[in-house]
Amino acid sequence: MSLDNIRIVLVGTLYGGNVGSACRAMSNMGIRHLRLVAPDAALDWAEAEKMAVHADDVLAARETFATLGEAVADCVAVVGTTARRGLYRQHALTPRETAAAVAPLVATGPVAIVFGREDCGLHNEEVACCTHLVQIPTAAYASLNLAQAVMVMVYELFLAAGSFEPVREKSPPAPAALKARMIGIWRDYLGEIGFMEPAMADHMMAAMSRIFSRGALTEDDVRILMGVVRQSRWAVANGKR
Amino acid sequence: MSLDNIRIVLVGTLYGGNVGSACRAMSNMGIRHLRLVAPDAALDWAEAEKMAVHADDVLAARETFATLGEAVADCVAVVGTTARRGLYRQHALTPRETAAAVAPLVATGPVAIVFGREDCGLHNEEVACCTHLVQIPTAAYASLNLAQAVMVMVYELFLAAGSFEPVREKSPPAPAALKARMIGIWRDYLGEIGFMEPAMADHMMAAMSRIFSRGALTEDDVRILMGVVRQSRWAVANGKR
Repeated sequence: MSLDNIRIVLVGTLYGGNVGSACRAMSNMGIRHLRLVAPDAALDWAEAEKMAVHADDVLAARETFATLGEAVADCVAVVGTTARRGLYRQHALTPRETAAAVAPLVATGPVAIVFGREDCGLHNEEVACCTHLVQIPTAAYASLNLAQAVMVMVYELFLAAGSFEPVREKSPPAPAALKARMIGIWRDYLGEIGFMEPAMADHMMAAMSRIFSRGALTEDDVRILMGVVRQSRWAVANGKR
Repeated sequence: MSLDNIRIVLVGTLYGGNVGSACRAMSNMGIRHLRLVAPDAALDWAEAEKMAVHADDVLAARETFATLGEAVADCVAVVGTTARRGLYRQHALTPRETAAAVAPLVATGPVAIVFGREDCGLHNEEVACCTHLVQIPTAAYASLNLAQAVMVMVYELFLAAGSFEPVREKSPPAPAALKARMIGIWRDYLGEIGFMEPAMADHMMAAMSRIFSRGALTEDDVRILMGVVRQSRWAVANGKR
């Protein structure tokens, strides 16, 4: 899904730090369109700029509206976030379910993700504007910091967009034959230095194989472990450098 | 997995607001053990308390250490967070992969999740203390706010713990027979009020069925939609109330 159709909508926000932190979280996750609905008159814009860090462009490009209805007028889906559970909030999805539900919709038009006030969330008439509701899973204390709630949602949306390439090791996983060769080299060497009696070799090498199989070794890992034996043999023959 | 064995370890933190916000995020996700390594001497503890909100108990119960080695001495796994990719950071997992990898380990002892400094992360010798590395997926701008990074990690750990019960609707999904009865009632009614010609009834009811199938209806939803017809018939017979 293209994240360009996501609109983050903050309703009645009180604290500039939360607006700025929300911008930074959005920028981290490749989401750039911020809409504010009736932000508090005393909101500290200097604090917002300070917390936005490298996302000052997201903050500067914000749009401001008088009501939630106006802010989401062009949106094909409106997802409200709610910490409370109640009669009108029973159909709330998790953030992960929501990201999956929203993915086909963002291909068709703008989709709003709506966050309420720091102290009292969204009013019931604002919840009524929403086509979807989402509740962020929490332990006992349910109310998240506003910018933290934004982070969880944009993180799930970014993952659902599927554009992130996780870092992967350059060295491929070692194939069985290479690992078998390494175990053979270790077996010979541990016999040579008297680490194990010949009668115990099978038993001890089963333990060594287990150790080397605790995690998947790469080809580079196996070459390092073979190099240890090579150098140890040299040291046994020639003494310490 | 039990979250009681998770240790959140903040190394060289500069800003009190981040310590406090991290406590709140931890408390939201049921994680209670905070360890600080050499926090900045000028760290603003009043700001930490302010941002901790209802997590002041987590903040008050923090343990402080001089080095990362001391802070993680009792831990069976040490997960370092890193924004950079480099020679020693190639084996970084995603937060979701990390939560899955950590789940069997927390049953055996404490597991540390380690976060570096706001300005320069973890030093290479601190990365060397880690048994696992994790990189939080991001778009272009890679560096997350410290407390936001904590939120993403504790959120994934909380979900992996599997203790959260998402809110589910009390009314079960409507079975096909109930929905067929509702469609029949609507068909009769729309014929009665002349909404469609008899010859067009099949065509129009296919469209109505499509509309009613856009999302999964509950039994309550179907009863409401049958009630609309019942009351409409009453109004047609008796006029407006």
